[in-house]
Amino acid sequence: MEPHELTVAEASQLIREGKLTPTRLLDSILKRIDALEPTLEAWVTMDRERALSDAEALTREAQEGSIRSPVHGIPVGIKDIYFTQGLRTTMGSPIYADHIPEYDAETVAILRDAGAVIPGKTETTEFAAYDPAPTRNPWNTEHTPGGSSSGSAAAVSSGMCPTALGSQTGGSVIRPAAFCGVVGFKPTYDLISRLGVFPLAWSLDHVGFFTRTVEDATILLNVLSGVEHRPDPEPPKLGLLRGYYEKTADESVWEGLMDAADRLEDGGAEVVELRLPRSFEYVHPAHSIIFATEAASVHEEGFRKNPESYKPKMRSHVAGGLLIPSPAYLRAKRIRGVFAMEARDLLGEADCLLTPSSVTPALRSLKSTGDPAFNAPWSFCGFPSITVPCGLTGDGLPLGLQLTGLPYGEEGLLSAAGWCERILDFPKGPRTP
Amino acid sequence: MEPHELTVAEASQLIREGKLTPTRLLDSILKRIDALEPTLEAWVTMDRERALSDAEALTREAQEGSIRSPVHGIPVGIKDIYFTQGLRTTMGSPIYADHIPEYDAETVAILRDAGAVIPGKTETTEFAAYDPAPTRNPWNTEHTPGGSSSGSAAAVSSGMCPTALGSQTGGSVIRPAAFCGVVGFKPTYDLISRLGVFPLAWSLDHVGFFTRTVEDATILLNVLSGVEHRPDPEPPKLGLLRGYYEKTADESVWEGLMDAADRLEDGGAEVVELRLPRSFEYVHPAHSIIFATEAASVHEEGFRKNPESYKPKMRSHVAGGLLIPSPAYLRAKRIRGVFAMEARDLLGEADCLLTPSSVTPALRSLKSTGDPAFNAPWSFCGFPSITVPCGLTGDGLPLGLQLTGLPYGEEGLLSAAGWCERILDFPKGPRTP
Repeated sequence: MEPHELTVAEASQLIREGKLTPTRLLDSILKRIDALEPTLEAWVTMDRERALSDAEALTREAQEGSIRSPVHGIPVGIKDIYFTQGLRTTMGSPIYADHIPEYDAETVAILRDAGAVIPGKTETTEFAAYDPAPTRNPWNTEHTPGGSSSGSAAAVSSGMCPTALGSQTGGSVIRPAAFCGVVGFKPTYDLISRLGVFPLAWSLDHVGFFTRTVEDATILLNVLSGVEHRPDPEPPKLGLLRGYYEKTADESVWEGLMDAADRLEDGGAEVVELRLPRSFEYVHPAHSIIFATEAASVHEEGFRKNPESYKPKMRSHVAGGLLIPSPAYLRAKRIRGVFAMEARDLLGEADCLLTPSSVTPALRSLKSTGDPAFNAPWSFCGFPSITVPCGLTGDGLPLGLQLTGLPYGEEGLLSAAGWCERILDFPKGPRTP
Repeated sequence: MEPHELTVAEASQLIREGKLTPTRLLDSILKRIDALEPTLEAWVTMDRERALSDAEALTREAQEGSIRSPVHGIPVGIKDIYFTQGLRTTMGSPIYADHIPEYDAETVAILRDAGAVIPGKTETTEFAAYDPAPTRNPWNTEHTPGGSSSGSAAAVSSGMCPTALGSQTGGSVIRPAAFCGVVGFKPTYDLISRLGVFPLAWSLDHVGFFTRTVEDATILLNVLSGVEHRPDPEPPKLGLLRGYYEKTADESVWEGLMDAADRLEDGGAEVVELRLPRSFEYVHPAHSIIFATEAASVHEEGFRKNPESYKPKMRSHVAGGLLIPSPAYLRAKRIRGVFAMEARDLLGEADCLLTPSSVTPALRSLKSTGDPAFNAPWSFCGFPSITVPCGLTGDGLPLGLQLTGLPYGEEGLLSAAGWCERILDFPKGPRTP
């Protein structure tokens, strides 16, 4: 087995045991990137020199018996909206094509301190919104990897790194993770610092990450949150949301979910059907209003000066946001409170909520990153959600199931996800396109 | 001396010493109300029965040697936007003409627990905005008492109660206090709970109160905040703001301030001239945007159904607020942050800021409550401010000086205000119209 095929937990174990060095791991990762990057276009900017020297230093530390954390020597891809000190950070926008931050985002600084090695920055849609990055899906390069964290999802899926940071405002972690057949995790709003992450819509923006296993997602969460979560996989009580989800999902997606739910029930999980609360019908419009308002607020000045420097979808969001009356924004914020209360009540009846992770499988297109509608409600209320691969469509494209838990209920959510992952038994090795 | 002429501190002292009973004090207050109310129209709803029975119970407690607090047995007028359990609360609006709350505002509950007696509810402009109440100024009944806390200011000024609650979103405590020749105090934003106070624009709304002395203002602050402030009057360093204030003030107002400043300097205060910060020029428009947006947000539904149930000024604010683009609201909120930082720096150079309390003296009109422009900046940034009467115009109308301090700097602000009050020596007895 090549080092680039290892999960975070596996590589971490070998480094601790002295059977693998950070340098050797990085070397394998860089070779994998050299081989696949021309096809997948997952990286915007590489930082080979710093990565190599960091890996060497971490190798010496390990040889002296000093291991900083479970990510000591682990390569982590960083979405290109996270500020990296001295390393170009473009937000996927020509406006920031030459932007070199003077400081690391707090998450980046935590990862570096913990011994992570950063090979480079991964592709993002423009400002983490809807205008596609060039990245392709490792499962089928004619299909989108999803967005906005396109490069991070494709990189983890294809073994160009075992884990990567993304961000989610609508469905920018869960959707690309599902499209690329990996685990995507978006913890509770504000649990992990957004300091130094370029805002899209600050009251909806979440830090999130991609891994190939739930165990690895726990490792990342623990390093980034500074809290030791210890999930204990057991058969969960899953609250299946039909209604809107069933009506909206692509047929292949709903079939995949039903099949997965059957297997989970056979394995010992309890699946109960729950009804979406009344306020759910206002969730998507309210999310859109907050999204467009805050995006317009961030970009107003630049947009008025030079609207042509924005790509079409972002331009339309900003222009639209500038027209939204302010009481509509405040009302949208109140709807969030109501929905959060109702969703919390709903979670009194199950350990977590069960839905498909995306409306469709990865679309056969590089012009659209797909629809975040199934993820946006949980970005809206800020509840933690995770996607676990649950099977393939007839066309061989991955499907994911999305689990959502209570705020700060990360440990329970990871327990449920870990158990589901074991039953569903989706291949964890990297995908070669 | 009749009991209604006593300040809070004086009455409190006599009650503690057994020389005055809450019942006797209330009796004097109710007689004063009977005598003046037909002229001044300061009260919307009286609550004689409850007040009498509360006063009797508090009299028995006092006779048994139990004194709850410095407001034990003290009558306190309550502005009619504060919810009072079982007692009509109208917000000055026909929409709420028959509204009987099921609970007391937190401030009202604290006052009742502390032994205050509530004779009734005082007149407010509609929703504490700009459409006048019927109240008249005790110094000249053809003049406005100011607003929005019109009834509370007139009641305290005329001895219909020694103290009363008001609220300030623009200049609704400081302005009417100045117009009526009493002390008005608006503590730091959020220092005192707004729970159960009907919102006008929640991020600008402050609880405040009227008294005839700075000592009484300290008593009210201590009871309502639960923190024992112990001001120590000493000659302060006052930062005089010319520029905008001098250019905007009525001539009589500026002359009155200069005269007061001279007397304060003669008394030993240091007066330095400070320049308003750059962001000040955005303060009034940003305040207006937040004001209109939040007011529109509160009233949107009712307004769309029945715009005629609002008076003209409020109607225009709500209609205008519904048209403000949401990024403008967010930008206005950011300006508040910038101005607060700059104002904090300015307060590094003096103990408090010195300005006139109002643009004009009380206008000869019952159709306008006057201009809050001199107070709105401190409602905008949430800094505490107080007005102390400083003299009379040639026409015999009171003038006030406004002092502004740092957030949570109430003790220092009251120290400065107490010292200024002693030097300025404005009559403290109630005014008979």
